[in-house]
Amino acid sequence: MCEASAYIIKDGKPELIMDSVDKAEPDENGIRLISIFGEQKIIKGSIHSLSLVDHKIFIQETPEAH
Amino acid sequence: MCEASAYIIKDGKPELIMDSVDKAEPDENGIRLISIFGEQKIIKGSIHSLSLVDHKIFIQETPEAH
Repeated sequence: MCEASAYIIKDGKPELIMDSVDKAEPDENGIRLISIFGEQKIIKGSIHSLSLVDHKIFIQETPEAH
Repeated sequence: MCEASAYIIKDGKPELIMDSVDKAEPDENGIRLISIFGEQKIIKGSIHSLSLVDHKIFIQETPEAH
């Protein structure tokens, strides 16, 4: 299986948010992650980069509006 | 191996641009794709969505400035 782990980049550091991610799709509130088990998470951010052989997806957090 | 094929979405239709993609990274001109063979391509666009179990990466083309 070729699922990956999703990390959010916060203050330049990756933080694990979800394992076994199959799909990532744009959502009105950011990005929707869907695992191979059907679990879903919506993250305020966008896909920053991928390293598929390492099974990693990096998501850049959307800065909060002030 | 868990590489994927990258498609660019043009007029709503996916068009294959690169096979065996390992990494995708932001570049000043868009997104840099790097294959498991070290081949590189820079695409004017951003990562739209992923379907990893299907080995697919979708890239949204950046609209040309007019």
